[in-house]
Amino acid sequence: MSPKIKTELDEFRHRNQNRGRLLVSCPDQPGIVAAISQFLFLNNANIIESSQYSTNPEGGTFFIRIEFECPSLKEKEAGMTRKFTEIAAKFSMEWSLTPVYKVKKAAIFVSKELHCLLELLWEWQSGDLMTDIAMVVSNHEEAREVVERLNIPFYYIPANKDIRDQVEAKQLQLLRDYDIDIIILARYMQILTPNFVAANPNKIINIHHSFLPAFIGARPYERAYDRGVKLIGATSHYVTNDLDEGPIIEQDIARVDHRANVDYLKKRGRSIERSVLARAVKWHLEDRIIVHENKTIVFS
Amino acid sequence: MSPKIKTELDEFRHRNQNRGRLLVSCPDQPGIVAAISQFLFLNNANIIESSQYSTNPEGGTFFIRIEFECPSLKEKEAGMTRKFTEIAAKFSMEWSLTPVYKVKKAAIFVSKELHCLLELLWEWQSGDLMTDIAMVVSNHEEAREVVERLNIPFYYIPANKDIRDQVEAKQLQLLRDYDIDIIILARYMQILTPNFVAANPNKIINIHHSFLPAFIGARPYERAYDRGVKLIGATSHYVTNDLDEGPIIEQDIARVDHRANVDYLKKRGRSIERSVLARAVKWHLEDRIIVHENKTIVFS
Amino acid sequence: MSPKIKTELDEFRHRNQNRGRLLVSCPDQPGIVAAISQFLFLNNANIIESSQYSTNPEGGTFFIRIEFECPSLKEKEAGMTRKFTEIAAKFSMEWSLTPVYKVKKAAIFVSKELHCLLELLWEWQSGDLMTDIAMVVSNHEEAREVVERLNIPFYYIPANKDIRDQVEAKQLQLLRDYDIDIIILARYMQILTPNFVAANPNKIINIHHSFLPAFIGARPYERAYDRGVKLIGATSHYVTNDLDEGPIIEQDIARVDHRANVDYLKKRGRSIERSVLARAVKWHLEDRIIVHENKTIVFS
Amino acid sequence: MSPKIKTELDEFRHRNQNRGRLLVSCPDQPGIVAAISQFLFLNNANIIESSQYSTNPEGGTFFIRIEFECPSLKEKEAGMTRKFTEIAAKFSMEWSLTPVYKVKKAAIFVSKELHCLLELLWEWQSGDLMTDIAMVVSNHEEAREVVERLNIPFYYIPANKDIRDQVEAKQLQLLRDYDIDIIILARYMQILTPNFVAANPNKIINIHHSFLPAFIGARPYERAYDRGVKLIGATSHYVTNDLDEGPIIEQDIARVDHRANVDYLKKRGRSIERSVLARAVKWHLEDRIIVHENKTIVFS
Repeated sequence: MSPKIKTELDEFRHRNQNRGRLLVSCPDQPGIVAAISQFLFLNNANIIESSQYSTNPEGGTFFIRIEFECPSLKEKEAGMTRKFTEIAAKFSMEWSLTPVYKVKKAAIFVSKELHCLLELLWEWQSGDLMTDIAMVVSNHEEAREVVERLNIPFYYIPANKDIRDQVEAKQLQLLRDYDIDIIILARYMQILTPNFVAANPNKIINIHHSFLPAFIGARPYERAYDRGVKLIGATSHYVTNDLDEGPIIEQDIARVDHRANVDYLKKRGRSIERSVLARAVKWHLEDRIIVHENKTIVFS
Repeated sequence: MSPKIKTELDEFRHRNQNRGRLLVSCPDQPGIVAAISQFLFLNNANIIESSQYSTNPEGGTFFIRIEFECPSLKEKEAGMTRKFTEIAAKFSMEWSLTPVYKVKKAAIFVSKELHCLLELLWEWQSGDLMTDIAMVVSNHEEAREVVERLNIPFYYIPANKDIRDQVEAKQLQLLRDYDIDIIILARYMQILTPNFVAANPNKIINIHHSFLPAFIGARPYERAYDRGVKLIGATSHYVTNDLDEGPIIEQDIARVDHRANVDYLKKRGRSIERSVLARAVKWHLEDRIIVHENKTIVFS
Repeated sequence: MSPKIKTELDEFRHRNQNRGRLLVSCPDQPGIVAAISQFLFLNNANIIESSQYSTNPEGGTFFIRIEFECPSLKEKEAGMTRKFTEIAAKFSMEWSLTPVYKVKKAAIFVSKELHCLLELLWEWQSGDLMTDIAMVVSNHEEAREVVERLNIPFYYIPANKDIRDQVEAKQLQLLRDYDIDIIILARYMQILTPNFVAANPNKIINIHHSFLPAFIGARPYERAYDRGVKLIGATSHYVTNDLDEGPIIEQDIARVDHRANVDYLKKRGRSIERSVLARAVKWHLEDRIIVHENKTIVFS
Repeated sequence: MSPKIKTELDEFRHRNQNRGRLLVSCPDQPGIVAAISQFLFLNNANIIESSQYSTNPEGGTFFIRIEFECPSLKEKEAGMTRKFTEIAAKFSMEWSLTPVYKVKKAAIFVSKELHCLLELLWEWQSGDLMTDIAMVVSNHEEAREVVERLNIPFYYIPANKDIRDQVEAKQLQLLRDYDIDIIILARYMQILTPNFVAANPNKIINIHHSFLPAFIGARPYERAYDRGVKLIGATSHYVTNDLDEGPIIEQDIARVDHRANVDYLKKRGRSIERSVLARAVKWHLEDRIIVHENKTIVFS
């Protein structure tokens, strides 16, 4: 990491040393907010931002995200976690309490096309993605120069379907070595095995092009062109074992018209992929996403 | 009111007989959410939707909107209001507790141009504006037919600047007679006196065209055309004594290009005015707006 | 047709008595524009609007749409057509020369859901769709009242797959009787036979919901909801024998978030369907669309 | 200029050696298109793209932009210009015939805030702005490093209102030395004198923030915040002697809500300024803009 970014991250950690985020989902019933806010009040924490949602107040699932400021958070953290475990048990909560100073560690996987990687690095250098990009992994050498110039470790791991297990074994070892929190597939054109996915639940974010209607299969841009689509788009989602069918985090589109040839469609597609992936990653880093069944609650 | 709309409103009131909305603003400090949610829990109310915002957790102002479901709300309402008055005093709150079944009564003021009125009536007939449109007031006769066809009382009150006080006296009497909660200026081309405005604080919603940059003064569309603006817009705001300077509720724009002549600019402008005003009114009816100093917090 | 709309159409015809539109597509080569513009100049016609596009200047296909003002167009029309036939032969053109005063006659097909029909009627009454809506055909009675109130003939033709041929025979007879130029499927939930489609090439416009990705098959909104889509959309296209696979005319989307339940998704979907279909129809009526292979050139 | 960009520009020049652009404005009358297209045909030029517009077919002004491919353009250029001068005289045309291989030379003026400069350099490196950035001029040193790293000459010319004439004399000399075609004010926070502006008619492009309504005068973002605007925007325009009142080229906005503090408004503002300025510059470089009175015709 370059000294400038290191300084920025350190300042961010210091600035947020007392900032915490609480994510909760549980069966809806009266008293949840009262219990949580009482817990925070007793810990002298001030609620900064709070968002909630219920699929159905009667028998549905309740979701809440609270960002709070709590003096001496570091000292209190273990005790708060212990105490909240009791509350959580009472309401059958799934939950996480994340101190903001514990900046998430990211690994970016990329193949030959660099547009998504470059966008992430640009946003990161601008201070808009508060993460520690711990490594970049690629099955090609195209990204090495730009990555190493920023003092980020670059791992070249050639890959193909015949050596998939062995490739993933190396990758999983690296993820452990660096204690990675989030894996960003920034146009990594290799299929991941169920084993790899299962080892990283709700931690792998992918991006792919999307159309209305979808053009499933080979050469989607060519086929979209042949039918004269007026919109092209991109979808970012968590990776599950259903290929490209995991919970959608973010989508966007751009208008095109008959003047757009296949190259232009691809170019616009790349531009949308960049911004959609960057937003999805940002929301993940800020603990704004709760996965519920096969969908996401995004408190953006 | 037509029988169909009357039936819909009655069903809405019945469906929401236990639904309430709490709007609060106060100096920020720890414990506010805990106190409010404890209050609701003790009244057996379930929080359906909650949005909050703080200008600054340290010394700023805190805002919250809670929509809740509370069995037997009608019976409990007086008691809850009494009880909450105590909590409010402790935190120096400005607040309102509004039962949803008490549908707001609206008066629409209009002059000759009917596009905003027609949009409101259309949205209302589609069930998207849950309000009791109690009357329409106009200084022209253009709107009479469409209004009376829907069985809404129509009051023709000719107006000009020489008889302003006398005109407003009639209007204020009507507002009292019908117990009006919200006055919608749907292109009512008369200036209101400070007296009229003061009598209806944060209750009058206006709409007007907007440009980047503004073309203040006469013939704004002509001047916007002369400079070849690429965007035209509209702004909806609460009326204060500063003409067209009250708290902004909603704004929107549309792109135009050199092909747009003055007539087309006006047409697009009307279209944006319609949708912007309708959104602002909808948010007001749903108690989604808190006015703070000269701005709005809109929990949309 | 109501007297007011009849008057408007008559005024439109009169105002545009000398206005014509020329649509041409042909293999690209130098000299096409020179030949066409020379032809118009010799007929004393002034070009008002001209749009062109070439898939590829070398060996591609060239498209042009010209709107022109030509004194005494009615008298000259036959002669101009004869003359242009010679030019067209030289450049292997497909073409049409349409006088604007010959307002297109439309048939709207609808089933139970009326939102698209209502939008078309609203736009039509506002003077934004210059067409003669000659009849509405439905396999249900829901639309009768609103249609007949506007003095438009309404034909109730019950339909199901067992009597498809017989139903279409009646419909085709009506299309001939009324000399229909455009058939708008405003949520007409019946499959058309290849025979019916072949009889009306590039004359049938359909609308359907669209998602990214598509949810092909039954209950698309429910499945889109289950996956938490962030965008929903609609596509309008010409009907070909490939079900829902004809040339796309227009598409649009709206953003939704996790708070949207299935009903809300459907409501937003209907809203987008309305505006997308209305735009597609408007462009068709204004001769702004050229179909080329399975795509459209839209000179909007 | 870096070797990579130099190579790209050379390839662009080669690829477009036969490509030309013709911009024309003149009083509207029949025969203009016929004359122009005949002229191109006789020169064996094929029209690739053509856009036109008339303020009013009867007595208005006609505008056309034609992009054409003409074998041996370099050899024919002088002859074509001579010939077209005759046609232009007949129709009282203002016109320009620009070979695309003559890439425009740009000077960027910047002060301390670098966001617009960085965007332009990024787009330029991506091959999206086909221009020869011949120099960057600044009254501060902030931009030097990033500019010189790309091998672009950087001129530090301190400026203040007391030495304005002397500063502009140096700048005008540089503009002559480098034979500059377009001056981009990428947040150059100095007022230009009428003398400087008059020396560069329709060649200086500026960017500034815009709001609905405008907040004219000091601290616009603070005042926009105080009134709770829901949209912030930016406007790019040609510089005339009317400060910030020249012909608008492009505008855009972004939505904000009550959560946006002044810093965030400024950040969003910078983001819009970047993209709006980049689009305006791109259109200028591609000869897509005609200035007419105080407005622009943009054939984008």
